Amino acid sequence: MSAGNLLYAQSGGVTAVINASAAGVIEAARKSKKIGKVYAAKNGIIGALREELIDTSLESVEAIKALRHTPGGAFGSCRYKLKSLEDNREQYQRLIDVFRAHDIRWFLYNGGNDSADTSNKLSQIAGKLGYPLQCIGVPKTVDNDLVVTDTCPGFGSAAKYTAVSITEASLDVASMHESSTKVFVMEVMGRHAGWLAAAAGLAGRKETDAPHIILFPELVFDEAKFLAKVKATVEKVGWCTVVVSEGVRNAAGKFLSEVGTRDAFGHSQLGGVAPMLAELVKRELGYKYHWAMPDYLQRSARHIASKTDSEQAYAVGKAAVAYALAGLNAVMPVIRRRASSPYRWEIEPAALNDIANHEKKMPADFIRADGFGITAAARRYLAPLIAGEAYPPYRADGLPDYVVLKNKLIRKKLPAYRIADK
Amino acid sequence: MSAGNLLYAQSGGVTAVINASAAGVIEAARKSKKIGKVYAAKNGIIGALREELIDTSLESVEAIKALRHTPGGAFGSCRYKLKSLEDNREQYQRLIDVFRAHDIRWFLYNGGNDSADTSNKLSQIAGKLGYPLQCIGVPKTVDNDLVVTDTCPGFGSAAKYTAVSITEASLDVASMHESSTKVFVMEVMGRHAGWLAAAAGLAGRKETDAPHIILFPELVFDEAKFLAKVKATVEKVGWCTVVVSEGVRNAAGKFLSEVGTRDAFGHSQLGGVAPMLAELVKRELGYKYHWAMPDYLQRSARHIASKTDSEQAYAVGKAAVAYALAGLNAVMPVIRRRASSPYRWEIEPAALNDIANHEKKMPADFIRADGFGITAAARRYLAPLIAGEAYPPYRADGLPDYVVLKNKLIRKKLPAYRIADK
Repeated sequence: MSAGNLLYAQSGGVTAVINASAAGVIEAARKSKKIGKVYAAKNGIIGALREELIDTSLESVEAIKALRHTPGGAFGSCRYKLKSLEDNREQYQRLIDVFRAHDIRWFLYNGGNDSADTSNKLSQIAGKLGYPLQCIGVPKTVDNDLVVTDTCPGFGSAAKYTAVSITEASLDVASMHESSTKVFVMEVMGRHAGWLAAAAGLAGRKETDAPHIILFPELVFDEAKFLAKVKATVEKVGWCTVVVSEGVRNAAGKFLSEVGTRDAFGHSQLGGVAPMLAELVKRELGYKYHWAMPDYLQRSARHIASKTDSEQAYAVGKAAVAYALAGLNAVMPVIRRRASSPYRWEIEPAALNDIANHEKKMPADFIRADGFGITAAARRYLAPLIAGEAYPPYRADGLPDYVVLKNKLIRKKLPAYRIADK
Repeated sequence: MSAGNLLYAQSGGVTAVINASAAGVIEAARKSKKIGKVYAAKNGIIGALREELIDTSLESVEAIKALRHTPGGAFGSCRYKLKSLEDNREQYQRLIDVFRAHDIRWFLYNGGNDSADTSNKLSQIAGKLGYPLQCIGVPKTVDNDLVVTDTCPGFGSAAKYTAVSITEASLDVASMHESSTKVFVMEVMGRHAGWLAAAAGLAGRKETDAPHIILFPELVFDEAKFLAKVKATVEKVGWCTVVVSEGVRNAAGKFLSEVGTRDAFGHSQLGGVAPMLAELVKRELGYKYHWAMPDYLQRSARHIASKTDSEQAYAVGKAAVAYALAGLNAVMPVIRRRASSPYRWEIEPAALNDIANHEKKMPADFIRADGFGITAAARRYLAPLIAGEAYPPYRADGLPDYVVLKNKLIRKKLPAYRIADK
């Protein structure tokens, strides 16, 4: 005899492993007699507001299992942060109305900082309105910026992708440099923190190993110093690989990617940092260059996911359901590192209050003194996160066997709802 | 009692599997008593001209075996096409001098069209000068534009990378489109022919599957038609994935990537086609976009190589040595397709005369009538080339176990040589 239904929702940018968390949630929930239906909000919180709820019981056992190796967000996601309770009580009320209409007792919200904040607020307002609701966060983010948790599911795989890609591209440049490309620039995600940029540093051991230069968003871009380092590297090694975070800014505080090119019509163009830096190198030093912008490829690359990351993503989903069944509220399962070498980790609950609206910065001692590489401390932290391979199954046609769910919506019970500022 | 030494050289842009061809050459040569030393020219033909020859016998059995799963060019490569015999006899004479000094009887040149031409010319001039030399080409190119051979080693892996990447990125966009990115543009290599762009089409089955729009270099870019298709796709599907070849040109014949943006200093910027198209979509249709430029990542991605491609790359290297031992001259081992489903292929010799200076164009019937996708004929041709996975071994630190050779040079015997126009 179930005590109610569970609603799961994905939030923010999706990753290579967020669906593994979904699988963890659904498989654990299906084992429990206490949990009735497991709904998933279509496109995250927007779907919850619109009462667009997917009945996951219609998905086969194999389909849910296949989520473990499928990238993207199987139910859709959105970036939509609910305002404060004072500014937008009406939206929280609407969510509670939807939950009440469908007997939702547990809300599991899978995302980063914003979703931790929303889960926290929802648990508070449910309490105030006397609606029996437990809110459990499920951590996720490629940015690796949730506090408390050792690492964020999604990050380790993007880090592995980054380190493997820069390794391979660098072997290519090394082959060609004598008569061709001398400088290769790759841009990585990371608007505020250089976690992914730092992960690229795992590809090398010595300072003469690629990547020779990492540009962290934590440091102000110094053009002269950068060019001098490029020149010195090409003269010593013969070629140079640069990894730059999209969030790097100049002394005036402007993102390098926004420091304006204009097209033939005078329209300003957001071209990305990599092409800008590459062109700078060509103009000032005369070296032939190539540049790469993986963009979504780096966060969706389930084909080269980290086994550690994939296992942690599943584990936090499973743990979230365990916490729900244990009566916990306004918590999130986090990863606690017990040891680095070998890497030992456990899942334990942490209060959403301690997590919401905080941002984990990269420690200053992770960046080498010259500013262009990572330290041993960074390596100790990062290396375990990219360890192990977890290949998806492939079809005979050479493509990964990713699942697309039916995603059938249940019948609505409430009047239509319009989201004003989506 | 050996009959002489063999020289192997890599040419042009390197790939994820050119080292597998090198392994095929060296392992086969090591088995033959007739072949003495196997030298590799450092950085390709430039090294041959400079008498910079690597003694591959100093590399261990394991190191040569590891070449099968290591991307890039283990001995270095270059883009350097020797001019005609009439225009540059002196350089051909120099090569013969180097070969004579080191008793090189077999020259195996691993590359695309340019190297096929050079091998052919070399075999002719050696004949004229009375120097006993057999020249054997070994096919390679990401561009897939060598004639006669069914496919070119290097292409299948880049094609697999492209199809897998666009599959994954599209799942990401599908998840986010409701409130975020609507249009994703990925640029692929292919200055003259749309082989890699076509390979992206393997990711989808129906016209509403990603990639929704492929822009082939064979077709003049029609901005209005493109924008209309983007709009129709977003309205029907909710989002749109575009794959564009770097070689797409406008009605005036200019590469889209060169249709000038200028930076703050008035310098023209080669920004790539993807950002240009993405910005066009935003400006004309208002859709939020993201774009990706894998660049070298797509041709160096040994971590997701095609098993078929890797096996073919090894096979042509091995066959080249067999042809050398059989006394063949001015030939290249090519891949002959016996059947598509299942894919059955063989290696056989083809005359360099029939291959050099020809370029294989993509058949017009590979492009769908509306110009934005591939046909069943294209699918039948392409699909087998990306089939099968051939993962490299990984180290405990989560990175692929790629080998870097010692590459020890032998002592020179000739005077120094200066390459005038490198």
